[in-house]
Amino acid sequence: MNVDGKHYRTIWLENPGCVRIIDQSLLPHEFALRDLRAPEEMCDAIRRMILRGAGLIGAAAAWGMYLAVLQHATNPDFENRMRTEAAALIATRPTAKNLEWAVACMQKALAACTTPEERLACALRIAQEITDEDADFCRRIGLHGRELIREIAKRKHGKPVNILTHCNAGWLAFVDYGTALSPVYAAFDEGIPVHVWVDETRPRNQGASLTTWELGHHGVPHTLIPDNTGGHLMQHGMVDIVFVGSDRTTAAGDVANKIGTYLKALAARDNGIPFYAALPSSTIDWDIADGVREIVIEERGQEEVRHMTGWDDATGKAATIRICPEKTPAANYGFDVTPARLVTGIITERGIAKASREGLRALHHA
Amino acid sequence: MNVDGKHYRTIWLENPGCVRIIDQSLLPHEFALRDLRAPEEMCDAIRRMILRGAGLIGAAAAWGMYLAVLQHATNPDFENRMRTEAAALIATRPTAKNLEWAVACMQKALAACTTPEERLACALRIAQEITDEDADFCRRIGLHGRELIREIAKRKHGKPVNILTHCNAGWLAFVDYGTALSPVYAAFDEGIPVHVWVDETRPRNQGASLTTWELGHHGVPHTLIPDNTGGHLMQHGMVDIVFVGSDRTTAAGDVANKIGTYLKALAARDNGIPFYAALPSSTIDWDIADGVREIVIEERGQEEVRHMTGWDDATGKAATIRICPEKTPAANYGFDVTPARLVTGIITERGIAKASREGLRALHHA
Repeated sequence: MNVDGKHYRTIWLENPGCVRIIDQSLLPHEFALRDLRAPEEMCDAIRRMILRGAGLIGAAAAWGMYLAVLQHATNPDFENRMRTEAAALIATRPTAKNLEWAVACMQKALAACTTPEERLACALRIAQEITDEDADFCRRIGLHGRELIREIAKRKHGKPVNILTHCNAGWLAFVDYGTALSPVYAAFDEGIPVHVWVDETRPRNQGASLTTWELGHHGVPHTLIPDNTGGHLMQHGMVDIVFVGSDRTTAAGDVANKIGTYLKALAARDNGIPFYAALPSSTIDWDIADGVREIVIEERGQEEVRHMTGWDDATGKAATIRICPEKTPAANYGFDVTPARLVTGIITERGIAKASREGLRALHHA
Repeated sequence: MNVDGKHYRTIWLENPGCVRIIDQSLLPHEFALRDLRAPEEMCDAIRRMILRGAGLIGAAAAWGMYLAVLQHATNPDFENRMRTEAAALIATRPTAKNLEWAVACMQKALAACTTPEERLACALRIAQEITDEDADFCRRIGLHGRELIREIAKRKHGKPVNILTHCNAGWLAFVDYGTALSPVYAAFDEGIPVHVWVDETRPRNQGASLTTWELGHHGVPHTLIPDNTGGHLMQHGMVDIVFVGSDRTTAAGDVANKIGTYLKALAARDNGIPFYAALPSSTIDWDIADGVREIVIEERGQEEVRHMTGWDDATGKAATIRICPEKTPAANYGFDVTPARLVTGIITERGIAKASREGLRALHHA
């Protein structure tokens, strides 16, 4: 996607020892790049959400493994070192499927290498493939999802199709294009009138800070709303379709996504509004079925709930404020699980599947 | 309720020309009182939410009318002046039923007066009655609701009863005791173990700033959560009952309350968790049935969504930050309507009714 006219991905190899990323912790107030040169720097960036998003942390983990190979390729204890690095990367964000998937891809490919040269060449090739594939799969998700928007647009006779989204599953959350927002960009680029309701997405405000920023840069009409608002909008016919991303989707179609997604799915069902999750197939965890029982939900620090960071227009600097009494305890669950029964369909790079074991299998094991 | 050992109501007549209130816009960071001496000052305080909450703005409107009588009692054009003052008070918060109800009570009583002395005495008497009745009704709501908590406590064998609440319907929202929190205080005071999940309640954060503050001052165990979290907690058996307040409830039992309430009601239903609205009968609008279609939903300024105010621990001062790009448009609906079908019951000063025309009638026209 373009930022001020220049094309960017969210992660790339700047030179053989340096992975460059967009620092998402400063958006929307500052656009800055950051260079990572060691696997522990990548772990730190993922954990602290300098970069975040289901697909992007998959690609980032692959590049983290690449940086680890750079460090350890000639080490006689290479396998053990890499196991430790892999475990550290996976531990940064426990709910994310793409992350462990990308690390496993890297490990599998590296297992076939014997010389340091082979390891280096292989790590570079696989990390780049994972990155390119993420972008390509997201682009295809956009084309499949666009058809859903097109159908609604036909019924609306020129009025914009109102799409609600939660959190940020746009290009910032992937290498490019995004998942939930990829259909929106594809429709917008084709001239289909669209308008996006952007859930603020407390506690980390990815909607307010990231989704608004990327939609704004692309020129897509949108409105920021508190997370509490979607139900009211749906009751009043102001939402035509809901698109969300996913951090892990079970073989039976249960969708783990940013905390609060489940509430929007309930409201969509109560008001007969289609609710789609968009995700590359690497997000699917074929080993589990019951998402509510089986998916580990990341718990993050209380300070993310008790404090909020934003821009102080008076001083022209970022500032952090406390929004509750000094000693108030807080809980911070990062994700929730939307049961498959509430999901109208799952959009992957291969097409649109019913949110069920049969639907996902038919699309992916055909 | 007590603040640092001293008993307070949220509003009282300090002396014949001065109504004193707690300035809720500074909580939880500063506890300050504010004096209001003219009806337009009361309008301003209600509009800017220096005081807020379903019952409290009813009492405040009554005291606003009292201050207006002080100004106009000897005016030959008294009736017209009072009509204008009444309209101004009602216009401050369009969704609130108690506000228009209190103003109507005052107008009706004043219509029977002929001399300035009668008007002054009548205005004082009725405003005080409305205030005292609000506190008394809330106290009774607590006793009825406590029985629901007691029943759950019996099944939990000493483990705390987990109550989820949205926004602030505690004593700060009324003259005393509150509605949604009144059963919690009544149970706590009797030694029943309780724990409250406090929804942050974006965009104005009444949960984070007010509910935490008053529960903390009373010693009730509680945890602050983002508004997105309740569904996940309910899926995992971490919520036993939901208590919310209401700003207007229809004759058929549809409940208008702070935006986002409907989403929690959907999650409660999906997980078989009882969901109660607690309100004095003055909140019931007997003239309407279909809340989603008929209740006017207040829309507030975009800046409440785009900005957030809190405490800067570094400077020891309140600070306001912007959480989105400079030009992002925002929508700010103050309330939503939870259809009666999702409401387990309605707790009023008279007892607990089914959320239906028959249920409410049986309790109130018996």
